[in-house]
Amino acid sequence: MSSQKLDVVVREIAEEMKAREDRGEVARYIPQLARADPEAFGIAVIDADGEAHVGGDADVPFSIQSVSKVFTLTLALGKVGDRLWRRVGKEPSGTAFNSIVQLEHESGIPRNPFINAGAIAVTDVILSGHQPREALGEILRFMRFLADDLTIAIDEGVAGSEQRTGFRNAALANYMRAFGNLENPVEYTLGVYFHHCAIAMSCRQLAMAARFLAHGGRNPSTGLNVVTAERARRINALMLTCGHYDGSGEFAYRVGLPGKSGVGGGILAVAPGKASIAVWSPGLDASGNSHLGRIALEALTRRMGWSIFGA
Amino acid sequence: MSSQKLDVVVREIAEEMKAREDRGEVARYIPQLARADPEAFGIAVIDADGEAHVGGDADVPFSIQSVSKVFTLTLALGKVGDRLWRRVGKEPSGTAFNSIVQLEHESGIPRNPFINAGAIAVTDVILSGHQPREALGEILRFMRFLADDLTIAIDEGVAGSEQRTGFRNAALANYMRAFGNLENPVEYTLGVYFHHCAIAMSCRQLAMAARFLAHGGRNPSTGLNVVTAERARRINALMLTCGHYDGSGEFAYRVGLPGKSGVGGGILAVAPGKASIAVWSPGLDASGNSHLGRIALEALTRRMGWSIFGA
Amino acid sequence: MSSQKLDVVVREIAEEMKAREDRGEVARYIPQLARADPEAFGIAVIDADGEAHVGGDADVPFSIQSVSKVFTLTLALGKVGDRLWRRVGKEPSGTAFNSIVQLEHESGIPRNPFINAGAIAVTDVILSGHQPREALGEILRFMRFLADDLTIAIDEGVAGSEQRTGFRNAALANYMRAFGNLENPVEYTLGVYFHHCAIAMSCRQLAMAARFLAHGGRNPSTGLNVVTAERARRINALMLTCGHYDGSGEFAYRVGLPGKSGVGGGILAVAPGKASIAVWSPGLDASGNSHLGRIALEALTRRMGWSIFGA
Amino acid sequence: MSSQKLDVVVREIAEEMKAREDRGEVARYIPQLARADPEAFGIAVIDADGEAHVGGDADVPFSIQSVSKVFTLTLALGKVGDRLWRRVGKEPSGTAFNSIVQLEHESGIPRNPFINAGAIAVTDVILSGHQPREALGEILRFMRFLADDLTIAIDEGVAGSEQRTGFRNAALANYMRAFGNLENPVEYTLGVYFHHCAIAMSCRQLAMAARFLAHGGRNPSTGLNVVTAERARRINALMLTCGHYDGSGEFAYRVGLPGKSGVGGGILAVAPGKASIAVWSPGLDASGNSHLGRIALEALTRRMGWSIFGA
Repeated sequence: MSSQKLDVVVREIAEEMKAREDRGEVARYIPQLARADPEAFGIAVIDADGEAHVGGDADVPFSIQSVSKVFTLTLALGKVGDRLWRRVGKEPSGTAFNSIVQLEHESGIPRNPFINAGAIAVTDVILSGHQPREALGEILRFMRFLADDLTIAIDEGVAGSEQRTGFRNAALANYMRAFGNLENPVEYTLGVYFHHCAIAMSCRQLAMAARFLAHGGRNPSTGLNVVTAERARRINALMLTCGHYDGSGEFAYRVGLPGKSGVGGGILAVAPGKASIAVWSPGLDASGNSHLGRIALEALTRRMGWSIFGA
Repeated sequence: MSSQKLDVVVREIAEEMKAREDRGEVARYIPQLARADPEAFGIAVIDADGEAHVGGDADVPFSIQSVSKVFTLTLALGKVGDRLWRRVGKEPSGTAFNSIVQLEHESGIPRNPFINAGAIAVTDVILSGHQPREALGEILRFMRFLADDLTIAIDEGVAGSEQRTGFRNAALANYMRAFGNLENPVEYTLGVYFHHCAIAMSCRQLAMAARFLAHGGRNPSTGLNVVTAERARRINALMLTCGHYDGSGEFAYRVGLPGKSGVGGGILAVAPGKASIAVWSPGLDASGNSHLGRIALEALTRRMGWSIFGA
Repeated sequence: MSSQKLDVVVREIAEEMKAREDRGEVARYIPQLARADPEAFGIAVIDADGEAHVGGDADVPFSIQSVSKVFTLTLALGKVGDRLWRRVGKEPSGTAFNSIVQLEHESGIPRNPFINAGAIAVTDVILSGHQPREALGEILRFMRFLADDLTIAIDEGVAGSEQRTGFRNAALANYMRAFGNLENPVEYTLGVYFHHCAIAMSCRQLAMAARFLAHGGRNPSTGLNVVTAERARRINALMLTCGHYDGSGEFAYRVGLPGKSGVGGGILAVAPGKASIAVWSPGLDASGNSHLGRIALEALTRRMGWSIFGA
Repeated sequence: MSSQKLDVVVREIAEEMKAREDRGEVARYIPQLARADPEAFGIAVIDADGEAHVGGDADVPFSIQSVSKVFTLTLALGKVGDRLWRRVGKEPSGTAFNSIVQLEHESGIPRNPFINAGAIAVTDVILSGHQPREALGEILRFMRFLADDLTIAIDEGVAGSEQRTGFRNAALANYMRAFGNLENPVEYTLGVYFHHCAIAMSCRQLAMAARFLAHGGRNPSTGLNVVTAERARRINALMLTCGHYDGSGEFAYRVGLPGKSGVGGGILAVAPGKASIAVWSPGLDASGNSHLGRIALEALTRRMGWSIFGA
C-alpha cells in the first residue's frame, strides 16, 4: 500500500515537474553539458523491498558529475579508513564548490570530500599505488557492481572537455600538491577525477547504486554488505552537512534528506530505512544545484513524510 | 521495555562519563563560567511518553548560553515567519562562532541564527516594538512555559559580566547596525541577548523545554502545538547543519542528531519521534562544544539506534 | 624665480580644476559632509622659504577627516616612540579603509595607522592617562601650534553626527578592545577620534601645519624642531605606502608624493625639501580620495618636477 | 668627493655586514638555492657618473629570482603600454608573495606586477605571439643590453628545479587561466617565468642594469633612453609600494628607497638622480627579504642621505 502510494506520488511529481516553467539555468562551462535538454526531468525511487518507482526521463543517462564523489568517498574509506580524515575535513565549507581561499587558510586540507578540492584529494587516495587506468577501472567496476548494471560507462567527450578546460581544478590540485596533500602526479589525479565525474548514469541506475546508503550499508536485494552500518550513517551525515556546497543548509531545511548534487543536474538522496532516490533536471539554481530536482525532492519528502527531521 | 532499556543506557552513560579523566577545558572568558565544576556531568532524556530518564547532575542548573538560541529562533519565527530569513541566512558558516569576517563579505547578513551575529539579529527581531525588559520577560515566560517550570531564572551575575566584557559581540552588533541589519539601539539588543544567554537551567528543564522539537511541534504531555510540524523539522535541520559552529560536521558525523551546544557545557539534542535530550559537562573541546557531552550523546545514539542517518 | 613659476603653476591648476566637469561624488554618509559644495576647489603650497602660493578656495575651511591621522600619529610617536608599533603595523592593508576582516586575521592589530582601526588605536595611545577633553585639547593645541593659527576649531556638528552614526567605527573599536588592543573605554576613545576627524581647516592652514614633514622635522619659519629628521622621513614613508587606503599604489604611481587624503575631500602632500601642499575638492573617486585633488597634485608634481621617484 | 665618501661608505658597510652574526635563513624550497653560502655579502653602487663602488662579493653571481620582475615589467610596458593594467593592478597586496586568496576575491587580476601571480601575468604578455624560447631570448638580451654584459646567463639547474617543484606557481597560473587572464598555455608561460627568475647575476651586473631607473629612464653612460622619464618614475613608485611583498611598508619606513627583493637574497634599489644599487646576502628575514641586504641599504641611505622621504 505504501508502495502504491509511493508509485502515485512519484508519478504525480514527474508530471508536475514536466509542467513547470521555471527550470533554472543549464550549466554552460563545457559544451557537452550545455547541450542538455532543459525540458528533461527524471525521478527514480528504490524502496526497501528493492522495488523501483520511476517517473519522467528516469532511464535517460546524464553526466553524474559531483554525484560521483559519494562513491569515490566510499571507495577511499574502504581503502584507508579513518586515515582519510588526515587528508580532508568533515566540515561544511561556507564557500563555493571550487573555492581555493579555504585551502590557503587551512594549509591545503580541503574542508570536506564533496567540494572539488576534497574530491580531488579523495581521488588521489584511490589512485595511490595504481596507474590512472586501473584506478578508473576500479571506480567504474564499483559503480556497475552497486547499480548491478554493466552498461554504465564514462562519457569520453565530457571527460576530454573537462580535461582541456578544467583550469580551476588544476589550480586546486597544484595547490594541494604544493602543501604535500597530493601524492600522485597532478595530471594523473586530475585525469581520474575528470573521468569519474564524466560517468553517465540514469536516475534508475543512480538510485540502484545508492541502496546501501539507505539500508545500513547493505544492498537489500542481494543481502551483501557494501560498508558497515556506521559508515553508511556517516556518509549520509556528510551528505547532509556538505552535499550541496553553499546550499547545503537550505537543502536540509527544505528537503530534510541527505543528498548530493552535481552540475549535470542530478541529485542523489537517501531516506534512511526507506528508499534511495535519484532525480535529474539539467537547469540549476544559483547555488549550482538542480532547480527542479530540489523542488521534486521537497515534494517527495513532504508527501511521503520521509524527512529525517521529524514527521 | 524500550523505556527500561533507555533507563539503563542513561544511567550507564552517566557513570561512564563521571569516571572519565579527559574532561576538556572549562570556558574562562568570564569568571562566572570559569567557576563551573569540571567534574560535573548531567543527562536527561524525555521520551515520547513524556517520561524522564536522568543521570548524574541532571537537576543542577547551569548557564545555557548559546542553547538559548534555539528558543529565541523559535520565538522570532513565531513573530515574523519566513521574513526572518531576510535578516539572517540558513547556511553553515565555516568559521568560528564569533567571526566578523563573514559579515563583511556578506553585507551584514549573518550566515545562520546560531552563530553569535545571527542570534543577535534574531534577538533584535524579538525586541522590536518592545522595551528590553518586556522582550526579556517574553523569552523567560516562553522557556518556563515550554519546560513547564516557573523556577527558571536568569543568572544576573553572568549577564552582567557578559555585558561588561562582551566587546566582540558589541563589535558584531555595531557592524550589523552599520549595514542596517539591527533596528534597535545596539545596547538594548545586546542587553537582551546577554540576558537570555545567561538563563540558568538544568538538563531536565532543557530536555523538557525541547519536547516540541522531537514531536512534530507538539508538546506530547499537554497535546498543545508550539509550532507546526514543518517548522519543528526546519529548526531541527538548522541545528543539524549549524548547531555546533565549526564543529557541526563532526557532530553530525559522530552523533547523528540535531543539536545545539553552549559554552556553559550544555548540549540540547533531538531524536525526532523518540526523545528530547540534554547533557551537560563544563569542559569544552577545541571547537567550543562540551567534550563529554558530545561523547555521551554519541554513546546514547549508538546504543539506542537513534541516529537520523540510519539504523 | 622658482617661486614665481610655482605661483603661476598653482594659479593655473586652480583655474583648470575650477573649469573641469568631472568632479567625483561628494561623501554622503553624514549630512554635514553631504552639504559640501561640489564646485569648491582649493590649493595651498608652502615652499621652503615659508612663502604661501595659493589658488581657488584656499582659505575655506573643510572637514579634514582622515588627514588628521597624520598629526595624531606624530603626537602618539612623540609620546611612546617605537612602542607604538606593538599596537599598529606599518604595512599597506590591501583592503578598504574601514575593513574589519584584517583585524580578525591579525589578532586585533591594525595594519597601519592610516586605516580607521589603526587611527583609533593611535587615538587610544594619545588618550591614555587623560580625560577625553584633555586629549582632544592636546590634539587641537598641536594643530594650532603647527599651523601657527589659533582659530582652528572642531566642527561640533560633524563630530556629533559621526558619533551618532559611526557604527562601523564602533565595531572596529570594540573588536580591538576584545583583543586587548584598546586601553580606554570604547566610547572615550571613539569620542576623541570622531572629534579630531571633525577638525575644520583650510588648505592654507593644513599646508602650514605640515611644513615640518617637508623640511626634516623642522618648521623652516621658526627653526623649531617638531620631530627628528628620521621621524619626518618615516611618517612620509607611511603616507606614501598607506595614505590613500586601497588607492595608495595608484597615488604613488600617478602623483609620486607622500600624501594623506580624507573623505572631506582634502589631501595633504609633502614634497621633501621643497614644499608642503594641501588641496581640497569635495568630490571623491571610487577609492574615497578627492577626485580633483589627486588630479591637481599630479599636475603640480609633473609641472614642478617634484616626484620623489625621479626627475 | 661625494664619490670618495660613497667609496668609503660602501666598503664600511661591506665590512660591517661580513662581521655580523645575524644572517637570516637561506631559502630552502629548492636545493639549488639552499646551497647558497650564508656568509656571502655583496654590494654594488653605480653613481650618476657611471662609476661603480663595490664591496664584498659584488662580482659573485646569484639567482636574481623576483628581482627579474622589475625588468619583465619594463619589457611588458614597452610592448603593450598602459593596456598592461587591464591584466594586473598597481596596489600593495597585503598578503604573502604567493597568495592565491586575493586572485579569487578579485576575479583573477593580480594586485600588482611584483607578486608571483602578477609577474606570471606580465610574463604571459611578453610571451604572446612568440615561442617560449624566443620570449626568453628577448628577456635575456634585454638584461645583457641593460647591464652591458654579454656573459649574463640562466642557471638551468635552478630553472629545472623550479619547474619540477613550482606547484604553487602552477596553481596561480591555472587559476588566472580559469579567469581568462592568461593567454598562452600554462606550461609555456610558467616555463618562461621559471627561467627568467633563474637568471644569475652579480650585484655589479644588477646595479648596472638598473641605471635607467635612477636617471630618468636614460642610461647615463651611453645616453640612450630605455624608457621615458615618466615610466621610470612609475616603475620606481611600484617598487616602493609593492617591491617587498608584505614587508613593503617596513622597507619604505626603514630604507626609504624604491627596491625589489628576491628569495635568492638579492635586492635592487634605486636612489633617483643619484645611484642604482644592488646588495646580496642569501639569508632571509620573516617576510622573505634579504636580512643583511635590507640592513645594508638602511645604512647606505642613512649615511649618504639618500632617502626619497627627506634629508
